[in-house]
Amino acid sequence: MKGWQFTETNAPLKLVEQPDPTPKPNEVVLDLKASGLCHTDVGILHDPSWGPMVAAPVIIGHETAGLITQVGTEVTNFKVGDRVAVSPQNPDTGQTIGAFRDGGYADKLVVPAMQLVPLPDNVSFLQGAAATDAGMSAYHPLFVVGKAKKGMKVGIIGIGGLGQFATNMAVIEGCEVYVADTKSSSRDWAMKVGATAAYENILDLKQHHLDLIIDFAGFDTTTNEAIEAVNVGGTVVVVGMGILHSTINTGTLIFNNIKLIGNSGGTPDDIAEVLKYFATGKMQPMLETIDYDQIPEGLNRVQSGDIAGRLVATRE
Amino acid sequence: MKGWQFTETNAPLKLVEQPDPTPKPNEVVLDLKASGLCHTDVGILHDPSWGPMVAAPVIIGHETAGLITQVGTEVTNFKVGDRVAVSPQNPDTGQTIGAFRDGGYADKLVVPAMQLVPLPDNVSFLQGAAATDAGMSAYHPLFVVGKAKKGMKVGIIGIGGLGQFATNMAVIEGCEVYVADTKSSSRDWAMKVGATAAYENILDLKQHHLDLIIDFAGFDTTTNEAIEAVNVGGTVVVVGMGILHSTINTGTLIFNNIKLIGNSGGTPDDIAEVLKYFATGKMQPMLETIDYDQIPEGLNRVQSGDIAGRLVATRE
Repeated sequence: MKGWQFTETNAPLKLVEQPDPTPKPNEVVLDLKASGLCHTDVGILHDPSWGPMVAAPVIIGHETAGLITQVGTEVTNFKVGDRVAVSPQNPDTGQTIGAFRDGGYADKLVVPAMQLVPLPDNVSFLQGAAATDAGMSAYHPLFVVGKAKKGMKVGIIGIGGLGQFATNMAVIEGCEVYVADTKSSSRDWAMKVGATAAYENILDLKQHHLDLIIDFAGFDTTTNEAIEAVNVGGTVVVVGMGILHSTINTGTLIFNNIKLIGNSGGTPDDIAEVLKYFATGKMQPMLETIDYDQIPEGLNRVQSGDIAGRLVATRE
Repeated sequence: MKGWQFTETNAPLKLVEQPDPTPKPNEVVLDLKASGLCHTDVGILHDPSWGPMVAAPVIIGHETAGLITQVGTEVTNFKVGDRVAVSPQNPDTGQTIGAFRDGGYADKLVVPAMQLVPLPDNVSFLQGAAATDAGMSAYHPLFVVGKAKKGMKVGIIGIGGLGQFATNMAVIEGCEVYVADTKSSSRDWAMKVGATAAYENILDLKQHHLDLIIDFAGFDTTTNEAIEAVNVGGTVVVVGMGILHSTINTGTLIFNNIKLIGNSGGTPDDIAEVLKYFATGKMQPMLETIDYDQIPEGLNRVQSGDIAGRLVATRE
């Protein structure tokens, strides 16, 4: 098998060839069909503070889907030929594929069966891969942490990979959705899929008395402006890690009794819910495809911000 | 009647004499017996950003208790001679005594009956006054927002007026209480009333895997260090307004799924609960008394930080 291996900070990814994996009793082996490119991978590649979270050398990529080709002796709920998405994090160990063990920028993957989520027939590998991290990481803050429900006024900051999922799902769920993004093309996309209003400036959200704002950008001022913009007693969930600090107005936080909640990750159940949204046929986040051999260039594009939605490597 | 009137930022308090108040149908008039001195009053006096929240000229002071001397024609649940504490904020209008209408640094107060809380027989006016703001503002973040309960591991940052109430109540409730304060006398006090451990440095709390930390200091780094110190999935409630901003590590907030919740104020129900703690005889926050004519000097001491617990003006 072949895969793109991370060795050390700021070294280029290395295309390595290694023996095909054999599953342990609780594992399966997949032929990978789609692997999404994530900002986290840019962090792993270039930011030394990710060091402790990565067992280098390792094949990176943690957002993937494929076809089962082998099952371990103890695996009973999946079989060869099943189409599955892979939950990035092991619920037992907390370890993530593409960081603690080989991941999705490869042609094969060995992974514990407990991390698998079945793909509905009408959901593609491409959609399935994107559901596992971008989708889950939008679903969990929106519905599990933020408790978004029909009729609720919800703000979405940053209409990139995750923000598009959140906007799509919140609209389908019947929320009143308001978005903020500096890119006019992203605002246009949001209005097209059913947002009520779209703004360049986050503080323009304030007039709508939003119960909940999700910050998928996380660029310091975006978090503080979300605190200023949300309604009294409201909730801001911060997911984006554009910069890993924010100077917030604690006076506003205190006087207005606001909750600021950090969220990372989610569960296989979240992924299954995201796949249901795809199965409705109504969810259409922008998914741009490339080949697996274009992954290094693709990650450069992710780093430069030159992506309208989610970039996913695919093969058939 | 006489009272200490605030006129404008950085002007000294003015001792004014004005006609005795007459109650509206839903109001009562009190002879004030005890009025606590609060950091908020220092803010009103010296920080122009409080301007919009104060209807100057106004007699300040919002933490008070006294004896009913007149009742309005529609007041049925209180009578002349009742001993009562006053909830600072009107639950209907949100307006606060000592800011939007005349308050407690006076010999008389007229206030809507809905803001009154009866004092149990064995709770003094001094305790009753301190319960209304310092007590309530400790109770609400600890028990209502932070959901502290028996056996829970709770951290308290800043063992001043509010922090002492919180430490006392959490210990009485059966929480495992850990405190952080830069003053050794405050740490000694906390250990004496039953804290499990007391530290000079907030980050030393981390080893105890606390579910909840309340930041009664709010001095920028205290909030950020609370986020670093609390357990994964834990909650930090920020109440203190030492400085009205904080640079927080959003990476820690996100990776560790931490909730940062701002809290101000509370309800008459909270005050009634605080009075019950006093009625047990076990709650002993440090309450230092002065005369009403020493209020301006007392506020200077509050500003300088030269108070171990809560400073309360009393008269008999």
